[in-house]
Amino acid sequence: MKFSALVDVRLRGGISDPAGATIERALPALGYQGVEGVTVGKTIRFTLEAETLTEAQTMAEELCESFLTNPVIEDAEVTVEEAS
Amino acid sequence: MKFSALVDVRLRGGISDPAGATIERALPALGYQGVEGVTVGKTIRFTLEAETLTEAQTMAEELCESFLTNPVIEDAEVTVEEAS
Repeated sequence: MKFSALVDVRLRGGISDPAGATIERALPALGYQGVEGVTVGKTIRFTLEAETLTEAQTMAEELCESFLTNPVIEDAEVTVEEAS
Repeated sequence: MKFSALVDVRLRGGISDPAGATIERALPALGYQGVEGVTVGKTIRFTLEAETLTEAQTMAEELCESFLTNPVIEDAEVTVEEAS
């Protein structure tokens, strides 16, 4: 069976986010007031082949921890569902 | 009132995704079979100050189109909700 996975990666709290900070600093000059707490993260989407949803979830989480994110500085949320 | 916005940016279909392709190519050698269609996107989160949810939504979409994404190659989905 095919499952689609979404890995949502964000920097952990306290880790500096230069991309977000740059956007935040630029916005007032561009005419946008009142925007704060800008953070930039990444998402990785893929489909995977597995027998059950549990197996797919385990595989996606393993993949995510070992190759897709850096657990020292990043937090990830893995969502797996049956592919339509 | 404060609202929190999430901008989910993905490459448009047909636009080449080298980061995704690299991950996909590497996985079989790392012991993961059956993973395909890997795409890498980005997310931008921020809080903004507005009178109503509609105003916040409009502002976030404007911001997104003008500065946060490149509409030529990227598709974005903007989600705005009242900040808790």
